[in-house]
Amino acid sequence: MLKIAVLGVGRIGRMHAENIAAHPRAELAGVFDVLAPAAVEVSEKLGAIRFDSVEAVLASPDVDAVLIATSTATHADLIEQATAAGKPILCEKPIDLSLDRVNACARTIAGSGVPVMLGFVRRFDSGHSAVRRAIEDGKIGELHQVVITSRDPGMAPDAYVEVSGGIFRDMTIHDFDMARFILGEDVAEVTATGSRLVDPALMERCDDYDTVSVILKTASGRQAIINNSRRAVYGYDQRVEAFGSAGMAISENHPLNHLRLYGDSYTDQAAPLLNFFIERYAEAFAAEIDSFVDAVEQGKAPEVDFEDGRQALILAEAAIRSIAEGRTVRTSEIG
Amino acid sequence: MLKIAVLGVGRIGRMHAENIAAHPRAELAGVFDVLAPAAVEVSEKLGAIRFDSVEAVLASPDVDAVLIATSTATHADLIEQATAAGKPILCEKPIDLSLDRVNACARTIAGSGVPVMLGFVRRFDSGHSAVRRAIEDGKIGELHQVVITSRDPGMAPDAYVEVSGGIFRDMTIHDFDMARFILGEDVAEVTATGSRLVDPALMERCDDYDTVSVILKTASGRQAIINNSRRAVYGYDQRVEAFGSAGMAISENHPLNHLRLYGDSYTDQAAPLLNFFIERYAEAFAAEIDSFVDAVEQGKAPEVDFEDGRQALILAEAAIRSIAEGRTVRTSEIG
Amino acid sequence: MLKIAVLGVGRIGRMHAENIAAHPRAELAGVFDVLAPAAVEVSEKLGAIRFDSVEAVLASPDVDAVLIATSTATHADLIEQATAAGKPILCEKPIDLSLDRVNACARTIAGSGVPVMLGFVRRFDSGHSAVRRAIEDGKIGELHQVVITSRDPGMAPDAYVEVSGGIFRDMTIHDFDMARFILGEDVAEVTATGSRLVDPALMERCDDYDTVSVILKTASGRQAIINNSRRAVYGYDQRVEAFGSAGMAISENHPLNHLRLYGDSYTDQAAPLLNFFIERYAEAFAAEIDSFVDAVEQGKAPEVDFEDGRQALILAEAAIRSIAEGRTVRTSEIG
Amino acid sequence: MLKIAVLGVGRIGRMHAENIAAHPRAELAGVFDVLAPAAVEVSEKLGAIRFDSVEAVLASPDVDAVLIATSTATHADLIEQATAAGKPILCEKPIDLSLDRVNACARTIAGSGVPVMLGFVRRFDSGHSAVRRAIEDGKIGELHQVVITSRDPGMAPDAYVEVSGGIFRDMTIHDFDMARFILGEDVAEVTATGSRLVDPALMERCDDYDTVSVILKTASGRQAIINNSRRAVYGYDQRVEAFGSAGMAISENHPLNHLRLYGDSYTDQAAPLLNFFIERYAEAFAAEIDSFVDAVEQGKAPEVDFEDGRQALILAEAAIRSIAEGRTVRTSEIG
Repeated sequence: MLKIAVLGVGRIGRMHAENIAAHPRAELAGVFDVLAPAAVEVSEKLGAIRFDSVEAVLASPDVDAVLIATSTATHADLIEQATAAGKPILCEKPIDLSLDRVNACARTIAGSGVPVMLGFVRRFDSGHSAVRRAIEDGKIGELHQVVITSRDPGMAPDAYVEVSGGIFRDMTIHDFDMARFILGEDVAEVTATGSRLVDPALMERCDDYDTVSVILKTASGRQAIINNSRRAVYGYDQRVEAFGSAGMAISENHPLNHLRLYGDSYTDQAAPLLNFFIERYAEAFAAEIDSFVDAVEQGKAPEVDFEDGRQALILAEAAIRSIAEGRTVRTSEIG
Repeated sequence: MLKIAVLGVGRIGRMHAENIAAHPRAELAGVFDVLAPAAVEVSEKLGAIRFDSVEAVLASPDVDAVLIATSTATHADLIEQATAAGKPILCEKPIDLSLDRVNACARTIAGSGVPVMLGFVRRFDSGHSAVRRAIEDGKIGELHQVVITSRDPGMAPDAYVEVSGGIFRDMTIHDFDMARFILGEDVAEVTATGSRLVDPALMERCDDYDTVSVILKTASGRQAIINNSRRAVYGYDQRVEAFGSAGMAISENHPLNHLRLYGDSYTDQAAPLLNFFIERYAEAFAAEIDSFVDAVEQGKAPEVDFEDGRQALILAEAAIRSIAEGRTVRTSEIG
Repeated sequence: MLKIAVLGVGRIGRMHAENIAAHPRAELAGVFDVLAPAAVEVSEKLGAIRFDSVEAVLASPDVDAVLIATSTATHADLIEQATAAGKPILCEKPIDLSLDRVNACARTIAGSGVPVMLGFVRRFDSGHSAVRRAIEDGKIGELHQVVITSRDPGMAPDAYVEVSGGIFRDMTIHDFDMARFILGEDVAEVTATGSRLVDPALMERCDDYDTVSVILKTASGRQAIINNSRRAVYGYDQRVEAFGSAGMAISENHPLNHLRLYGDSYTDQAAPLLNFFIERYAEAFAAEIDSFVDAVEQGKAPEVDFEDGRQALILAEAAIRSIAEGRTVRTSEIG
Repeated sequence: MLKIAVLGVGRIGRMHAENIAAHPRAELAGVFDVLAPAAVEVSEKLGAIRFDSVEAVLASPDVDAVLIATSTATHADLIEQATAAGKPILCEKPIDLSLDRVNACARTIAGSGVPVMLGFVRRFDSGHSAVRRAIEDGKIGELHQVVITSRDPGMAPDAYVEVSGGIFRDMTIHDFDMARFILGEDVAEVTATGSRLVDPALMERCDDYDTVSVILKTASGRQAIINNSRRAVYGYDQRVEAFGSAGMAISENHPLNHLRLYGDSYTDQAAPLLNFFIERYAEAFAAEIDSFVDAVEQGKAPEVDFEDGRQALILAEAAIRSIAEGRTVRTSEIG
């Protein structure tokens, strides 16, 4: 049994804690949160120890590994501390909003040999990963184009958006990682376009965008197109399409149920899409924990690592610069 | 060029006349209708001769073949007359509402050598025929079950229903033929159930049903299930499912167009179904003419013949008896 | 917390035990199985007490309720014993293969006031229950026809089939209950057809069928069509269609994932269906436990009760008689 | 009856001639082709006059209008000649490969009052036009993003590609027009990416691309994404997605038929897509003729006009420049 402590038990940390508790080869070694009531509630509900400090967690011999689900600003520090304590890490994305800080963190933990896994949960979705497997199995031949549609069901609260680091670092970052996962090759060029259509006033205030389109290109010429919106009224729109020389693989959306309705003005109507990531990626979050447990137990490299987190942030930086300068930006110009 | 005259230019006859006129290896040799204005209109529109009598049509050396689209009561007589005149025939279903009359007609035309094709148009639908082809190609292995869903978009006018001969002879007859087409084996047993749910008063008055379910079984045990309703508000519901030892083939419905709509309470909504048979089976009607032209030109047996029309009527009679007696009826008991 | 003991921890009982252990308002009070090793394994894995006898379970003050997942032949006895002990019951279907025994059991437990819930799990499927809700919400108007497609992915072992009581009591019984659930009205008439197509030799030996079609009819004329096969190579085929005066609702199949593949000879290809009931109805099994806990905690009548189990068995008996006598059988003739 | 002569009776011209001949309010006034045998064949097949020269066509009082389906290099000249002769024109796209020539042509015909319709046939597709109608009807609220997937089933012959003017002027031009049709607003900015993945050697030789992605943006911030490939093995991939504040509308692909196949390793498999534009847009080509006849008969402006052709070419020029300079290009910089 791998004993994992959870740092930060807000909405996501709590879900991770439940998944750890339910995992057959893991157990919840305890929880910590700067907001004590949240930690108390989760520790009582799941019958887990509540730690009083990060230091206590990292010093505990009953903690084999940590899951970091605290606020973004603390991620890099905690990664450094846990690495120093020799505790394997599963950290929620992003590592940090600053590429400089990420690079510094990378230098700090270099050579430690402590596994750091990044929480790009979508890689563990059964549909998205089936797309990648179809490519690996040669089902679509040589990969030519990837189309990623990723639209949130609704705008996050203003307060969240204001400190999010902008759509590219906060939301598109998942799609940048998905593009890398599917492309199977480093991205060489980034071209982005942003608009303010969902909440223009907020976007103006934050110098941010709510509607973006991005084209990525690899050295060999493979293309990935990402389109994002902060609000899709029909639910959480999450599709991945891979087009190749011998076919195409699409990971389709997940409606709430398998009902189809027919009426006097329509046919074959499905339910709205699962809404939101906790529901849509429920199985993927559990599979992510499983992958982490596997990696630590078997001494394997994590399926998604620190460098994947850094590369996704580089693409975000490139997209921001692309819009600012109205041009295609090479990733070699960043970081 | 095969010169085909059309007898009866109501809604269906007129469509046949247009298809003949548009066929590359056929021409419209003329039209006849007991209602002169209908014949005048069609003959003018399509630039075809208007005949004054059936006799004139059958006597004309410029008529190679006839398409019979008159009222049902006249079909058997016209088949006998055209056969006597040596003109190949494409006759709309059903041959007659009376099995005795059909049997008499069969005796009369026996040995004439004149091809008689029956207008079971659905056999020429690209989806339904692809189901049969999938079976023939071994795609689904040994056939076990057939499910035919066939629902009209709305009840025909009372006056039509009253003289229709009842739902089994008028509407289900198409499904009986489709079942035979897909089953590829004679039907041995028929069990039927009927209800009055769409227009109970009219059904009561006509001693008819508007909602029926029928199970057919062949000697080898293959089963076909037919479900019919006289009114589906979402359009003309026409599906054929064939289930076998190695798979399944389904001919799906045809919506008005390929649009899919997503809103705040639904996703993936399609348009209503094509409505009604003239639209839904437009391509099949053209393919039917093509098959007739082929058969006559090349001296081949028609793809659907008089005996197919007689067998479908036997199934209708068996269904009627099954309901009347509350039991499974063997086709060998009929006719 | 409702403390539930599980009697019988074969494949299904074990899954129920896990669902109880994971339920937020229930706990696993212990397990019992006549095969001690199975009980030991489950009790160790889930950290639950292992009882040595049914008597011990029923006598324990730490057992609030029991879930019966033993072999069918013991169900009625255990229901009687647990009722006598005042323990609320969730019993796997069927109650018994003999209607006489079921009727006797009904008399024995009459008036006890102890809740007995029957495990017709499909009622708790999100798609199937959405069909019923659509009907209740008036989305399809007056209900006219129900079509239930239910095909197992593969034939059970011979030894299982031989003691199963035949396809109607063992497999179709789920569909009989589903038909009752969707029809919302008692079934008045049953007409059935059976064939031996999947494994003719075994079916001959057991005087059983592997391929059946059944038509049910209510007093008001609503029809339900059930088609069953013991083997669908593409997976566990579970569809429910409800057709009414104002529309149609369909609960569609569940493929393994949401991938769609396109190649040079096909498009839009989905994965095989989930296979088998443990996977397909995983959420429904959990929802069933939830419903049971709710009913017991709140003193409500169970959503599926003993009488539902008895009625489904009456339909099975009627189907068997229908085939034997080649006629439509009224349910009032049975039991 | 509008008497229309067809100039150029290659594959497309011939199809137009047939559609004109079949149109209820039009007739084929004759054909002309520089290759006499082609003209002879079509004129004989359709029973139409064969003209010996363009001049003869334009001088004929029996020609009310002309359809130009000659090679691209002749379009602008023929538009000028026909305009001078006062004959309304339906011209295949593109007007010319050179924007300068198009601009000169625009000046020449300015003020003539002769209707010139451009053959952007996809606007007349029932699915694509339903997307636009859904927007106009407010079904998806304010439009935010358009995604156009457009992939040919296979690379055209080298000889064709070499003189095609490049993928943007030859193939993407249809998608540029579709984007304008759906966006309902002028495009302000164009960003494009091109790759050589299908036939790198040919593309290298022609300084062309076979795989491109383009982002368009309007002044108000609406975005359109186009992705093109010269070869999709599963058929002619033609999808249009419009995403807005209140929903989404998608025009889906057209498989060869409505069959769905299930086997032991897959479910719900559809047929390959219709292949190629003559089949896929058959109805749209007929509807285009209908729109032209309507416009001329009723003195209305054509639904797609010369300026639409010019604007699409401007977008092509902008895309070419965008790739060349690695930057976003404003349409105001072009032409």
